[in-house]
Amino acid sequence: MSAQLLEFDPRRFRWLGIEARQYKSHPGEARGMGWRGISRCVLTGDEAVPAGYELRYFELEPAGYSSLEKHRHVHFVVVLRGHGRALVGAQVIDLRPFDALQVPTLTPHRWLNESREPFGFLCPVDRERDRPQPIDDGEWDALRANSVTARYVF
Amino acid sequence: MSAQLLEFDPRRFRWLGIEARQYKSHPGEARGMGWRGISRCVLTGDEAVPAGYELRYFELEPAGYSSLEKHRHVHFVVVLRGHGRALVGAQVIDLRPFDALQVPTLTPHRWLNESREPFGFLCPVDRERDRPQPIDDGEWDALRANSVTARYVF
Repeated sequence: MSAQLLEFDPRRFRWLGIEARQYKSHPGEARGMGWRGISRCVLTGDEAVPAGYELRYFELEPAGYSSLEKHRHVHFVVVLRGHGRALVGAQVIDLRPFDALQVPTLTPHRWLNESREPFGFLCPVDRERDRPQPIDDGEWDALRANSVTARYVF
Repeated sequence: MSAQLLEFDPRRFRWLGIEARQYKSHPGEARGMGWRGISRCVLTGDEAVPAGYELRYFELEPAGYSSLEKHRHVHFVVVLRGHGRALVGAQVIDLRPFDALQVPTLTPHRWLNESREPFGFLCPVDRERDRPQPIDDGEWDALRANSVTARYVF
């Protein structure tokens, strides 16, 4: 077997041969599961790769946001591009290039881009993992009642 | 639990609170296993993180190089900084920022920095994995006999 190079094109900010897909295959219909303006590139897409992880690149357009969700698997991201914001539990965290953030298990979280430039990050994840789920009533109410987080709970 | 932010310091090109360690704890004594001028930062160092992968950042100083080795687990890297070179099997591949490279299972490989600036890359890897091993006699002889790869086999 030979090495597989994914050549990066700085002008497009994409890897040659890697197609950008939608963030999710369905619009989220459950409360908080809506999202806007996100693309997803899977860098380790070849299922023949005998590794337990996948590496994805997500990019949020200006005004883009992800689902407000939680899951058992841990999230870890490394910013590659732009400035973004993460709602994680009761925290709101600003992110700049190469900042890394770990989201604990079952913690409500949402990524947002409130800047005028694209915001993109790498996200390695276990290949076998649980599906994201909406946050529950108690979590929703607490985040809505918190002046720091309320505006990101919709 | 609260989110863990690893804030990046662009001046030092390091994450606050993450200590750079040596590439390996021992100098390589077996043929080809020598290395020079490499540091390693483990971004997912907390063993409490219930994920099957680790994410490391390796950085090679100018003139730095890694062991010439192989292992069953697949390597995948994403360049963050500088220009480097990878020997992978019979290929020599130049790498620039955000290029991504997959090294197949049991394929001899070595990373090199022949530039005047640091060369750094992210490398996610399965937490449970086999140890690197020296390449065998046949692989050594073939790489030495190949004019493309010979200079990197030492």
